[in-house]
Amino acid sequence: MFIGAQVSLYPMTSDFEQVILSGLKALDPYRDRLRIETDDMSTLFVGASAPLFDALRDLFARAAQQPPHVTMHVTLSRGCPGEPDDPSCRCETLSQAQDQTLAERQTLATEAVQAAPVLGVEIDVQFSLYVLGRDRHMDEIYGCIDFLKASGTFLRSKNFCTRLRGDAGAVFEAVRQAFLRFGPAEGHVTIDLTASANSPTLR
Amino acid sequence: MFIGAQVSLYPMTSDFEQVILSGLKALDPYRDRLRIETDDMSTLFVGASAPLFDALRDLFARAAQQPPHVTMHVTLSRGCPGEPDDPSCRCETLSQAQDQTLAERQTLATEAVQAAPVLGVEIDVQFSLYVLGRDRHMDEIYGCIDFLKASGTFLRSKNFCTRLRGDAGAVFEAVRQAFLRFGPAEGHVTIDLTASANSPTLR
Repeated sequence: MFIGAQVSLYPMTSDFEQVILSGLKALDPYRDRLRIETDDMSTLFVGASAPLFDALRDLFARAAQQPPHVTMHVTLSRGCPGEPDDPSCRCETLSQAQDQTLAERQTLATEAVQAAPVLGVEIDVQFSLYVLGRDRHMDEIYGCIDFLKASGTFLRSKNFCTRLRGDAGAVFEAVRQAFLRFGPAEGHVTIDLTASANSPTLR
Repeated sequence: MFIGAQVSLYPMTSDFEQVILSGLKALDPYRDRLRIETDDMSTLFVGASAPLFDALRDLFARAAQQPPHVTMHVTLSRGCPGEPDDPSCRCETLSQAQDQTLAERQTLATEAVQAAPVLGVEIDVQFSLYVLGRDRHMDEIYGCIDFLKASGTFLRSKNFCTRLRGDAGAVFEAVRQAFLRFGPAEGHVTIDLTASANSPTLR
């Protein structure tokens, strides 16, 4: 299994480099458990889902605590057939999901969101979950959307994606559960995610 | 068939709203051929691939002609089983692709990039092509990557995505060809794309 993300932070301010550098400090607690490599367009995270999603959450929450409008784009992937197996990405949730029904996975996902920490940072997210290389992929997508609607973070459906809104703790936990518990445990699953905070449109 | 995109423009300047409004003027020639709806996170485009990709290209090229660092994120989708059929999205390229071999589609895609207009705006793009709901989806992905490598816009492969660089005309044509000519013509295909211009990292 190979799990990772390409991550980009976009502060809408002329001082954007300062906001990015400040946000990157939030990654320090995770650097020993994630491979992190930056180029001019995005930063690669590779590792297990626990530090991976916690790092995404803390990076964005840190940036959102500053006044400027800020967004983050994340391309998440697990099980891509073109990537090598990486022992650091091993995931108990995925191993267990193989023997669980859709209803069981929906219940476990909802419980995980209810247990998420409260960060005190309100954010918006929209994302698409893609289940690749499998017939009837929409069954898992619709099952995931049903979970999201009951998660307490659901805002509304849009063309091609789902909008979430809430505390950064619950919202990123909802996305982690969508990523891990829907689609085949050993299959190729990806997410296209955008987070937003401090939008002037919402003020 | 339903074809569309969720589009967000991110100018890294405190004057970001002015750059966005200026960029949106580039959409005026396309408004009679596309459905365009904006909310606080993204703008929905629905319509045929000809005006759709031309509009994306012109929107980003206009924004990139101003000095600030600017990025654009696009979630593209065709053939999603959850979306209604829309006659305005009808696409000759897709209809013809049904009877063409992978090699024929690669040749036609390369010719289209060679015929693309030159806009005089250098941009960077990274994107992922997802072929959903079909076994052996990686054959089409690898076929698409072979086309990109020969397209004149290829920069390098990254984890989970492919980097392109070049004139906005050729780069957006390469993405349009990837979107239309790879994956089943009547299937569900999506793209997760980020464009970037004027990055301080590259100066």
